[in-house]
Amino acid sequence: MKWLVLLCAMCAVDISAQETGERGRARDFGLETGILPTGKWNAITDVPGVTVGHTTLVRGDSVRTGVTVIIPHQGNIFQQKVPAAVYVGNGFGKSIGLSQIEELGTLETPIALTNTLSVPATADGLLDYILALPGNETIRSVNSVVGETNDGYLNDIRGRHVTRSDVLAALHSASDGAVAEGNTGAGTGTRALGFKGGIGTSSRVLPPSKGGYTVGVLVQSNFGGVLRINGAPVGRELKNFYMMEKDPYVADGSCMIIIATDAPLSERNLKRLARRSYLAFGAVGSFSSNGSGDYSIAFSANPDTFVPHDAPEKPMTPPVLHNDEMSPLFLAVLEATEEAIYNSLFMAEDMKGYRGHAIKALPLPEVLSVLKKYHALYHDSLPRAAEK
Amino acid sequence: MKWLVLLCAMCAVDISAQETGERGRARDFGLETGILPTGKWNAITDVPGVTVGHTTLVRGDSVRTGVTVIIPHQGNIFQQKVPAAVYVGNGFGKSIGLSQIEELGTLETPIALTNTLSVPATADGLLDYILALPGNETIRSVNSVVGETNDGYLNDIRGRHVTRSDVLAALHSASDGAVAEGNTGAGTGTRALGFKGGIGTSSRVLPPSKGGYTVGVLVQSNFGGVLRINGAPVGRELKNFYMMEKDPYVADGSCMIIIATDAPLSERNLKRLARRSYLAFGAVGSFSSNGSGDYSIAFSANPDTFVPHDAPEKPMTPPVLHNDEMSPLFLAVLEATEEAIYNSLFMAEDMKGYRGHAIKALPLPEVLSVLKKYHALYHDSLPRAAEK
Amino acid sequence: MKWLVLLCAMCAVDISAQETGERGRARDFGLETGILPTGKWNAITDVPGVTVGHTTLVRGDSVRTGVTVIIPHQGNIFQQKVPAAVYVGNGFGKSIGLSQIEELGTLETPIALTNTLSVPATADGLLDYILALPGNETIRSVNSVVGETNDGYLNDIRGRHVTRSDVLAALHSASDGAVAEGNTGAGTGTRALGFKGGIGTSSRVLPPSKGGYTVGVLVQSNFGGVLRINGAPVGRELKNFYMMEKDPYVADGSCMIIIATDAPLSERNLKRLARRSYLAFGAVGSFSSNGSGDYSIAFSANPDTFVPHDAPEKPMTPPVLHNDEMSPLFLAVLEATEEAIYNSLFMAEDMKGYRGHAIKALPLPEVLSVLKKYHALYHDSLPRAAEK
Amino acid sequence: MKWLVLLCAMCAVDISAQETGERGRARDFGLETGILPTGKWNAITDVPGVTVGHTTLVRGDSVRTGVTVIIPHQGNIFQQKVPAAVYVGNGFGKSIGLSQIEELGTLETPIALTNTLSVPATADGLLDYILALPGNETIRSVNSVVGETNDGYLNDIRGRHVTRSDVLAALHSASDGAVAEGNTGAGTGTRALGFKGGIGTSSRVLPPSKGGYTVGVLVQSNFGGVLRINGAPVGRELKNFYMMEKDPYVADGSCMIIIATDAPLSERNLKRLARRSYLAFGAVGSFSSNGSGDYSIAFSANPDTFVPHDAPEKPMTPPVLHNDEMSPLFLAVLEATEEAIYNSLFMAEDMKGYRGHAIKALPLPEVLSVLKKYHALYHDSLPRAAEK
Repeated sequence: MKWLVLLCAMCAVDISAQETGERGRARDFGLETGILPTGKWNAITDVPGVTVGHTTLVRGDSVRTGVTVIIPHQGNIFQQKVPAAVYVGNGFGKSIGLSQIEELGTLETPIALTNTLSVPATADGLLDYILALPGNETIRSVNSVVGETNDGYLNDIRGRHVTRSDVLAALHSASDGAVAEGNTGAGTGTRALGFKGGIGTSSRVLPPSKGGYTVGVLVQSNFGGVLRINGAPVGRELKNFYMMEKDPYVADGSCMIIIATDAPLSERNLKRLARRSYLAFGAVGSFSSNGSGDYSIAFSANPDTFVPHDAPEKPMTPPVLHNDEMSPLFLAVLEATEEAIYNSLFMAEDMKGYRGHAIKALPLPEVLSVLKKYHALYHDSLPRAAEK
Repeated sequence: MKWLVLLCAMCAVDISAQETGERGRARDFGLETGILPTGKWNAITDVPGVTVGHTTLVRGDSVRTGVTVIIPHQGNIFQQKVPAAVYVGNGFGKSIGLSQIEELGTLETPIALTNTLSVPATADGLLDYILALPGNETIRSVNSVVGETNDGYLNDIRGRHVTRSDVLAALHSASDGAVAEGNTGAGTGTRALGFKGGIGTSSRVLPPSKGGYTVGVLVQSNFGGVLRINGAPVGRELKNFYMMEKDPYVADGSCMIIIATDAPLSERNLKRLARRSYLAFGAVGSFSSNGSGDYSIAFSANPDTFVPHDAPEKPMTPPVLHNDEMSPLFLAVLEATEEAIYNSLFMAEDMKGYRGHAIKALPLPEVLSVLKKYHALYHDSLPRAAEK
Repeated sequence: MKWLVLLCAMCAVDISAQETGERGRARDFGLETGILPTGKWNAITDVPGVTVGHTTLVRGDSVRTGVTVIIPHQGNIFQQKVPAAVYVGNGFGKSIGLSQIEELGTLETPIALTNTLSVPATADGLLDYILALPGNETIRSVNSVVGETNDGYLNDIRGRHVTRSDVLAALHSASDGAVAEGNTGAGTGTRALGFKGGIGTSSRVLPPSKGGYTVGVLVQSNFGGVLRINGAPVGRELKNFYMMEKDPYVADGSCMIIIATDAPLSERNLKRLARRSYLAFGAVGSFSSNGSGDYSIAFSANPDTFVPHDAPEKPMTPPVLHNDEMSPLFLAVLEATEEAIYNSLFMAEDMKGYRGHAIKALPLPEVLSVLKKYHALYHDSLPRAAEK
Repeated sequence: MKWLVLLCAMCAVDISAQETGERGRARDFGLETGILPTGKWNAITDVPGVTVGHTTLVRGDSVRTGVTVIIPHQGNIFQQKVPAAVYVGNGFGKSIGLSQIEELGTLETPIALTNTLSVPATADGLLDYILALPGNETIRSVNSVVGETNDGYLNDIRGRHVTRSDVLAALHSASDGAVAEGNTGAGTGTRALGFKGGIGTSSRVLPPSKGGYTVGVLVQSNFGGVLRINGAPVGRELKNFYMMEKDPYVADGSCMIIIATDAPLSERNLKRLARRSYLAFGAVGSFSSNGSGDYSIAFSANPDTFVPHDAPEKPMTPPVLHNDEMSPLFLAVLEATEEAIYNSLFMAEDMKGYRGHAIKALPLPEVLSVLKKYHALYHDSLPRAAEK
């Protein structure tokens, strides 16, 4: 499947997936979101330097969880911090490490995602990693950044099965290129918009006249709403949405959104970028329910913007984009977040777990029928963003 | 047209408008947004006590502006303040009065909307009004709340044509019931999503099991993006969107979103409600561009929640909803904001103004064709929210 | 010593301490801060229902750390949450649990304090506690709240010696009444203002005409500056302050400030209360240095304000004070925080630890000389707040 | 008096003032705050490029108000914006222009201060100024920044006597060098800490090893508390403080704090700097009462940090200090704010105004007696910050 994607990253349609009922990414089925082109992998890893790793825990009847890590660059991130910012869409969550990002404007560890009750173990795993890095022998203060969503319906979450070594395994397995999606890592046990959720990723590339920058997004989807896909009312057509008659639907959950870019952004504009990712909820038919802890963390992976741990002799002179250059990036992050959510749904598979609870994957044949009805596929005839 | 709406507020389709090319509200053309029913007027005035007034200034070749006021209740609002909150989606704006709402949790004047450079005059007009109210003879501190968007393309904004008496006129003309939309009041000279924008309003009513509360929204639309209407890619179909080839499109502008509810909400949950209105940008294809000052102000018009100016002898005991009751309200505000934006576009008409600049209204026949192509109209066959 | 304090809580002067060179609380030496009276214990435990527990880890040459817990009430706090708020003076810290407090306005676990790198273990300990409480068998989401300061100069912080059972031990040892201060619990290895810091506490009681409410504060002091005590320039007199010639002084560190009150406050006014505690830095000669993570967490221990985990059938009607009633509480929290910091210094003793590092306690005889020189003791002749 | 100050700016003691009962600045009487040296003028104008202007309105029995403007640099500030940030200590105020500073990180007009009800007129005056500047002929959006405190006890505030031309007069009179203090400009009718307040200013200069930067502060003091001066309990000694028996004392009011620096700071670190100015309340015995709208606005006047209105072709590369360099600046802003408040009190004179209301100036002879008693004057023997 991958070679097709590579041949035709812009409009990739994986016919076989469509015919066979296999899972695939949204674009494999002709679903193109927005007007901007994707990067090569249509993934957060399209931003140079960024890698992603997963540890997936599927054990026995009840353990359905894991860890996903996003590593901003391949050096010692504690010694070379990256500009970063957080936007809290809905703070009903247990993340750790947010206030220091806000205060100091930097991220000094990889970002790890996991389940709600495994945040402490995961934060400890990040500490293990950072304290052990060569060059960090004497440091005594580390701001581990961990996000979470609650997979307690499918996973024995009270068992707190994630260990520090699971975090290290995810870190050591991290790679660039294609990113595993769906029921993997921190997305193993999540559900979203009435179906099985999980990890999803996507990216956008700006035209040269707008700087040619890349924005990559990775989501851990675990939230509810009234699902729309590219505008088509899929949730209602499939009779699976929030507030439907005799409602067994759970709107709560959460969504973690991780954003990387090679644009040289200050932490202030990274925060503005992060805020726009929240708008993707509106695009996919969600309203960020009371119980949904929705956080966006954005960082610059542009090496010229890195901040050394020790103050240099003279003031730093990082490149920073003017505010007026931000709009194309705002569009890019919104499109990539929307598509990352779709990818998390398209790639996730049926899952059965804790106490026999089961969640069905998004039923692709039915969904494709709905998308066709609403002309939500094959938008090749529609104009896109100018390419220059 | 109105009697049809009255006869059938829930599903009103005004056939005549559709056939004659007249302007009309989105529902007049079969465009139903979301799964919740509207209130009687499908307007912010569906929240009991709330009134709206406009002063529209269209003079000569160049004056295309005005004032719109939203009055939360019909008593002395300074003496009986309403719980309120602000969410700043994008703070590139010149509003006045926000920090006191945030700090004290109350609103003590009507909310006025106008153009960017007329905020001071409008704030002074609110002062005139409040200082002169019987019972306010000795007060020396008033927090005028004024929002704005920039109508400087169609309006001679540097002329600062709005006067204090224009504000008083808007206040004195305020009424309940149907609300004028489109090129009226503070929406006279605005543009949105590539077309003429303006004032729009909508409302939602929760089912009895969710409290039966009403949420009403009024917007002053003046922002850009890649227009979607009920999911249909209208902007792309009409070749009028941000970042299109040879782009004359201006994405900047702003959006003011005013939210009223009779739900008994604390200022904290009002802020959460306000934040969800921002998601409507994602629904309509906008990304809250750099130059778009996007603010949401929410207040409770439930009299049991009013806060007296002078501290009572004993602690107050206002009713407040539990956090867990918020999700239906979040859905309601998102739907009402999305539809209010559509109404602002559907009701606005062509406008020519300053220096001969002209903006076309949303071309309804073409738009309806697009909406039909994408099955975005007449969603009667789709399930809605449970009615109980 | 205690009986003297009990006999004369308002003006307690422990002569013996002063004569013998023993440590004692600030008031034991005639140091009275501010104009408001203290509660019976001059401690956070003066707020009914609040208890405090410590686990102190002093092992071998290098382990100098611990855990301090503050329990807001003696029921199941997860099922009966308390209104709460956070103020971040300087977000250079690793606390966990803050964003949910901000979003939901409640605290659902005890607050635990520890060292920077033991936050994860401590958060896990709180999870152990909450998950095991009768009535919590099915809960799957818990927001552990843990604060920290960095004791890495005296403590082998990289060893992460705090365990989950240390947290449980602190919780199980918690009691009302007098609170251990100085080198105890989370204050075991901290330093402040050039000397040994630690845990300190204090309280204030408002006169009946102002509601008669109690405000209690507990601090974990670990920050720097130019020490003033009741206005006297102690740091400069003792030649131990930030930016002195040949500066070995470390201004960084952090301060956690925990605030309890029985006043019926909304989370908004709790946040305003928390913000005033930050002003105590200015009173004691600190400027909240770059490296000082300074957080204030305030909660209401008034049972009428508790928020049930499950939404009740009808809106809640908690008592809430009017904004105009807040000023006396603001004064109270500032005084109590200032005195809690003094108590942390007065009660802490010399400490030697990691790698032979040693920190001297505040040298009481010299300090008392300075205080006498500047008339900072025995302010009995000065007027205080009206008692009615 | 001024020549003495000039001769000995660092330690200036104006003997004559002390002997004759004249008003003078705090240092004229031997009151030295903190450990850092002042700039030449001990004023915000010590930051190169910064000028200050006043319009003082004292008319008949009732008009006691005015305007004070701070101009960050002498070019076209709209075209060359300055990095800026706002800290809201207590948002009970009517300032305009704050949210855009927060969002965009820049200030594009001078800052004007006035009375509460004259904010609109003053904002309009700033618009007049900016719109008329050569080079600004086509701009249509300007973010006027106006702060205020409430002088309604001494001033006929409901009369709204400040006009747009008063603002222009203040702007055109602005100069560098010595700054008029006390009952001048926006401080004409204010009161603070039980006495007549007004405008005050001060500055600090860092030693070369810390960058040699200057921090200048200007305050409009109008707030209450329990006055301490350099630690001495002046309010209690003079029996004039909040919550005293039979309390006629008004704690409410407000304080505007304007901060300039030539240090190359990002808007994030400017915000952190602004936050530290709030700590001066704790130093002078205030608790930022409920009714006190306390705002700090900080900007960088370092030309290398200016931000052009139009985006340049390439990313900007402004110099920015590393976080680790901030602590000395934090100390500087705290000291300068504290002293600016003292200067506002020392320089203000008795004032009688609206309805015969009268406020006495700080009684210098009595105050000096108290300061002597508490050894708060002539701290020459105490060590200061290292000079290198």
